[in-house]
Formats: sequence, C-alpha cells, structure tokens
Amino acid sequence: MPAAPRWRTALAKALSLPENKYQNVYQLATIDANRDPRSRTVVHRDFLHPEGSPHLPVLLTTTDARTPKVSQIHDHPRVEITWWMGGSQDQFRIAGPIRVVLSPDVKLESGSSRQEPSLALDRMDEQGFDWEKKRLDIFDSMSAHMKASWCRPPPGSIMKSYDDAKKWPQTVPKLGEAESEEDKRNQEQALRNFALVLVEPVEVDWVQLAEKPNHRTRFTRNGEQWKEEIIVP
Amino acid sequence: MPAAPRWRTALAKALSLPENKYQNVYQLATIDANRDPRSRTVVHRDFLHPEGSPHLPVLLTTTDARTPKVSQIHDHPRVEITWWMGGSQDQFRIAGPIRVVLSPDVKLESGSSRQEPSLALDRMDEQGFDWEKKRLDIFDSMSAHMKASWCRPPPGSIMKSYDDAKKWPQTVPKLGEAESEEDKRNQEQALRNFALVLVEPVEVDWVQLAEKPNHRTRFTRNGEQWKEEIIVP
Repeated sequence: MPAAPRWRTALAKALSLPENKYQNVYQLATIDANRDPRSRTVVHRDFLHPEGSPHLPVLLTTTDARTPKVSQIHDHPRVEITWWMGGSQDQFRIAGPIRVVLSPDVKLESGSSRQEPSLALDRMDEQGFDWEKKRLDIFDSMSAHMKASWCRPPPGSIMKSYDDAKKWPQTVPKLGEAESEEDKRNQEQALRNFALVLVEPVEVDWVQLAEKPNHRTRFTRNGEQWKEEIIVP
Repeated sequence: MPAAPRWRTALAKALSLPENKYQNVYQLATIDANRDPRSRTVVHRDFLHPEGSPHLPVLLTTTDARTPKVSQIHDHPRVEITWWMGGSQDQFRIAGPIRVVLSPDVKLESGSSRQEPSLALDRMDEQGFDWEKKRLDIFDSMSAHMKASWCRPPPGSIMKSYDDAKKWPQTVPKLGEAESEEDKRNQEQALRNFALVLVEPVEVDWVQLAEKPNHRTRFTRNGEQWKEEIIVP
C-alpha cells in the first residue's frame, strides 16, 4: 500500500505539538463572482483518504451551505489553504480541487463552467463512501451551541442590533434526541444548512522557519505519485 | 479632520493585547495566471494614511520582488487579507486594491488589463509621499539576517540540498555601513529585490468570537465615508 506523503506526516506531527495547540484553523482562499480573491478562517475537522490509498489524503472542514464561499466553490472548485502554525513556525500552503457535500435536500443552481479533476474524491465515490453518513456523524460530533449556529438567519444578512442574536435558538440537540416540536424544527433546519467541505491536495508548499537556514519543500502530485523538491524560501 | 474608522481602532486595540502578541501576521489572497486563488502568510509592518486623512488607512507589508505574488498583484490588483487573532478570537477580513512599490531599477512587464480604483494611495501620490524613502527606511529597519534574505537565488527556484543555503550571504549591513565589496554587492542586490506591498481597505468584515452571542460587523467604504452594518455571523 502506498504510504502517506511526507508533508502529511509532517503536518500531523506539527499539529500534535503542544506549542501548536490552538492552530487547528487555516485560511481558505476562493474566487468570487467578480473574479476577485476571497479568504476566511475555517476550522480543520478531519483527514480522510480512499480505502487503501493513504497517499491520497483529503482535508475536511465544515460550513453553512448559505455562506458565499459555497457558491464561490461551486463556480470555481479550486482553492488554496494557508495553514500557519505560529507555535512551531511552520507554514503549509495546500492547493487543489474542492468539493462541498450538501444536505440531499439542498440543490445549488448549476452555474459551474468548470470541472476540476479529482482522484481521491472520485475514488471514494467509486468505493461507495457514504458522504451523507459522514455529514451526519460530523454534525452530531459538534456541540449543541455549534449546531444551533446553522439555524440562524442567513450568514451575512443585516441585523438591527447585536442583541437580535439572543432571540435565536441557543442549542440544538443530538440526532434522535429532539423532543419538543421546536427542537425538531431547529434540528431539521440546522441539518439542512450544515455542509462538509473537502479539499484534495495536489500541491503543498511547506516552509519551516524554525530551521536555520529555513527549509522550504514543494510537493506536487502527478497521477498517484508525489514529487518532492527543495526550493528557495 | 475625519476620524479613523471604528474597525481600524478595534484592530489596533486587538493587536496591542498581550494574548495577541505573536499575531502580527495575516494571509494575503491573490489570483494567479490560471485565475486560481493563491494565499500565503505575510508579516504586518505598518499602517499609513494620507496626510489629514486618518479615515483612509493603508496596510503595509513587504516582499521579495521576485515572488509570484508580485506578478499576480500586477495582473490583478485586488486582494483580500485574513487577519485571525487567535488570542482574542477576532477575525478581520480586509478587501481592497493593492499596490507594490518596487525599486526604481526594477520594471515588471506590463500585462495588467485592469486598473483598480484607489483613493488613499492616489491621495498620497498627490501629496508627494516619498515611496522610495519609505522603502529605504523599512529596509533599514529590518535585521541584518532579514536583509540577507533578499539576496538569495529567486524564491521558489529548485535547490539540490537544504545545505545549499549555507553558502548564501547570512547578513547584509545597514545602508551606509557596507564596507567590503561583497557587502556592497549584496546590499545592492537585496535592495533591488526588496519591495513594499500596500493594501487599501474598502471592505472590512470583523467577527468577534469572544462575544457571546458572537458579533459580526461589516464596514464598507463609499467614497470617503465608512458605512457600518451589523450582520449575521
């Protein structure tokens, strides 16, 4: 079985260091409808890979299906992640195709003129990976407060006052544990808005600023092979 | 005199908090020649504004003129910065036009099909702001090791071994302090490659995750006025 690429092992190691304790977030850069770059911080949730293919890792984060990034990704399904770990002074820039897994009840208007080639995600599809089960599992692993964040009004819409938020649901129970009609309604809405975001790395640029002189390594996936090059920082 | 916008005051306050001590870095998102998003971490160096116009702030960072981001900015001079301050749980997303101030000896091939409207930078030009003096001042304020980073081979070019870097100049003296021919040559090369990067905010999205319920505020510059809206996080 082909091994995980060296950057993947290095990333896991960096992430496990105590000095990087709160660095499980990265910036996700996309393109908007004006063809301008957009970027925001998201929380890393998990690594996946097709069965038998740890050399094809995928990064998993989550979002609300109503955020602008979802339509941006739909229209231009290629992104770059910047994962800066200040504790250990490591930067991983990770570029590749991206996919959003929505609720089966949600359809985006098809505006995409572009299909981004994918290997890991296509293989998981072929292997019958159950994306909806994964979506429900990740949803259920979140706190009751976090679950409630997906039954707010649409993100980015205008409010009269910060205090308007106090009228929104504050918690949503786990799946199978909603008892009141209100809890059931909120859970349904939260689940409808909750989406997985999957990034398949095909190019990784790793800078190690704690090394003196600094190290910088570029990993490029060609087919199933990872090429590794030492480059000038 | 119009006051600085509230986001600018909030940003300065957040940056001054002890828990945000090492958070003087942000991610700069650009568009590359394939129209794909790119992003990397850069170090915040300074705030500027036109004389008499603190309501038109500009963010200053620096780079090597030979990095891909410089030609990306040249071709598409609009960006978004994501400034995540994990200590205080604040995110500032800052979008607007961008300009690179190169050495007077360096010219980029003109490939830009787009002029991004600017207000603060144009006003500083009209006021006769001395960009080259600023470039020299910022260069000189950097450490001798940092100065030496701009006389390496071109960033991103392939090396045989990490140890090749040990052959590169390790320090470059301050302006006026180069004595040997080698120091003079290195300083000249470093100064030729050193560039300022200026981002003029026209849209700022501030999320405060330490507030419960979370606060999110969007600031939009229309002409010389900043409009402020409370929005759903």
